[in-house]
Amino acid sequence: MKVNGQHYHTIWVKEGDDSIVQAIDQRVLPHQFEIVDLKTCNDTVTAIKDMIVRGAPLIGVTAAYGMYLAVLGNENLQEAAQKLNASRPTAINLAWAVNEQLKTVEGLSDRGEVIAKLLENAHRIKTEDIVISRKIGEHGLSLIEEMSQNKKGETVNILTHCNAGWLATIDWGTATSPIYHAFEKGIKVHVWVDETRPRNQGANLTAFEFNQHGIPHTIISDNTGGHLMQHGMVDMAIVGTDRTTIQGDVANKIGTYLKALAAYDNNIPFYVALPSTSIDWDIKDGLKEIPIETRSENEVKYIQGKAENGKLTKVLLTPESSNALNVGFDVTPARLVTGLITERGICNANKEGIFQLFSEKK
Amino acid sequence: MKVNGQHYHTIWVKEGDDSIVQAIDQRVLPHQFEIVDLKTCNDTVTAIKDMIVRGAPLIGVTAAYGMYLAVLGNENLQEAAQKLNASRPTAINLAWAVNEQLKTVEGLSDRGEVIAKLLENAHRIKTEDIVISRKIGEHGLSLIEEMSQNKKGETVNILTHCNAGWLATIDWGTATSPIYHAFEKGIKVHVWVDETRPRNQGANLTAFEFNQHGIPHTIISDNTGGHLMQHGMVDMAIVGTDRTTIQGDVANKIGTYLKALAAYDNNIPFYVALPSTSIDWDIKDGLKEIPIETRSENEVKYIQGKAENGKLTKVLLTPESSNALNVGFDVTPARLVTGLITERGICNANKEGIFQLFSEKK
Repeated sequence: MKVNGQHYHTIWVKEGDDSIVQAIDQRVLPHQFEIVDLKTCNDTVTAIKDMIVRGAPLIGVTAAYGMYLAVLGNENLQEAAQKLNASRPTAINLAWAVNEQLKTVEGLSDRGEVIAKLLENAHRIKTEDIVISRKIGEHGLSLIEEMSQNKKGETVNILTHCNAGWLATIDWGTATSPIYHAFEKGIKVHVWVDETRPRNQGANLTAFEFNQHGIPHTIISDNTGGHLMQHGMVDMAIVGTDRTTIQGDVANKIGTYLKALAAYDNNIPFYVALPSTSIDWDIKDGLKEIPIETRSENEVKYIQGKAENGKLTKVLLTPESSNALNVGFDVTPARLVTGLITERGICNANKEGIFQLFSEKK
Repeated sequence: MKVNGQHYHTIWVKEGDDSIVQAIDQRVLPHQFEIVDLKTCNDTVTAIKDMIVRGAPLIGVTAAYGMYLAVLGNENLQEAAQKLNASRPTAINLAWAVNEQLKTVEGLSDRGEVIAKLLENAHRIKTEDIVISRKIGEHGLSLIEEMSQNKKGETVNILTHCNAGWLATIDWGTATSPIYHAFEKGIKVHVWVDETRPRNQGANLTAFEFNQHGIPHTIISDNTGGHLMQHGMVDMAIVGTDRTTIQGDVANKIGTYLKALAAYDNNIPFYVALPSTSIDWDIKDGLKEIPIETRSENEVKYIQGKAENGKLTKVLLTPESSNALNVGFDVTPARLVTGLITERGICNANKEGIFQLFSEKK
């Protein structure tokens, strides 16, 4: 989508030098717009680990390019796969993309051919992600259109949590794709953007996206959505997911479950937008089976923002000696999810619904 | 309670000079411990408005001293009452304390006598608040004791939101009072402290209190409680309230409703601790009848913390031009509240329960 009026993807191979992959540094948004060079597989591991890139689909594409850079740097592909897989535990797209790369060069021995194949396949994974995001948007658009008609053209208020925007994918996003599509079609939309502590991807990234694209939005603390729902100020919620089980449980950024409870309590539709690559076909019970990442307590204790002098500055928010716990994700049980918006259409958040769209997975 | 090993109240008349009221400046906690002088009624209005002091009971006591300082400064008492009442819209204790002061000097004309009466009555209101907090603690203690016995002496994990601690009252606190009492009785407790965006009173104040008093605690983002409850890591929640209706609906810091939903969904007891002064006997339906304060969007967009150079620094967290909405409170419907812990005992969150303890209000 657009940044400063120019169309960007989140990751690309540098023009004129295909030994360098470039990505938007998401750690310094929204205050600075910087591009980083990823020259080695380790650079991509670091980019994933340090959240220069984040969001399940983008992590997958980054890992795909990481595999390419590994062979370009004469590294062992299996070892590269291993360290990429270990860089973030929750996102299933990561393992999927790494595996796609391993498969594509299976049996090949010529280094040049392996490199070419890995690059080509990374491009393919990237392009497919754009198509998936676009299709999610086209399907989700119908829900917003319907709501807009029900409201006789009045503004549709949508709540979203964290960033499942184009910055989490390559373009369009997942949860935001229906919103971008509605906006481009001239439907009046307004988005409540959960700031999404501790890393504030809503305030940093989703708000940045919407600002740059001109989509009306208001940032709120994560505590606020329930109140807004109680008072008819939210028409629907659309969030992303890092992993969905076949019974329709969804792991997403910590706090999603709380918003789903509030939506349910107030009879507000709660949708989860996802590429089918984030469905884990092997597991049912999200609460019991999805591994949940615990991150550094410093992400809770410190926060970065722009100080008065214009510099990015980290400040301590808590007593120095207090402990903090930083759980990255929670699981929203399927019973609270109104529907899943996928690249193949919208379905109920249960086995029957999912298999209706993805019958080949039965 | 204790700060640096010394026993403090949140507000007091300066030793040796009773024309000055002193209070802990809660805006710079937990990084700095500073005392401010309040010399005029306007100083107390500012202290309430700027949240140098906050928390319903402490606001009430501050307003009571504000009335005293008004007459000491030759101000009109009615006008003082008016501006104090206007300083924060949600807290009912404020209007109550101001009214108590008006009543105490009704019919008196001698200025010296009025001053003496107002000071004496402010002291009385303050002392009564300490007693109320202590009693809330004694009653609430029984719930923690019972939970501890059920867990065979294992640590009782309690979640709290915002700061309903001694810093919100004069001493002991409301939601924290049962915790302090349990701790002093040697019961093993651990508290999950919601940081409570946007003003982070949990991370700034509750964590400061517990740190100074030695109570085991862990700070979490407001998004985290639902996940902890899903995984059996919370035994009970205790929160405060700014206003409770006679049907047991409670207004409290924004986000309380979300935690109550999660507690209900996971069958975890959710208690609200309150002095009866925060019961609004005139209203029933909290969602419809409690006025909710909207505060400056800058409290969402900016946050203060301690920078590496040791200085308190404000940083911008959002795109400069994004809007934010800052709703101060939400209302938790009585159906989600397990019980109210008051100075007279514990009751169900409904009219029958409340009138059982406060039959004179029928």
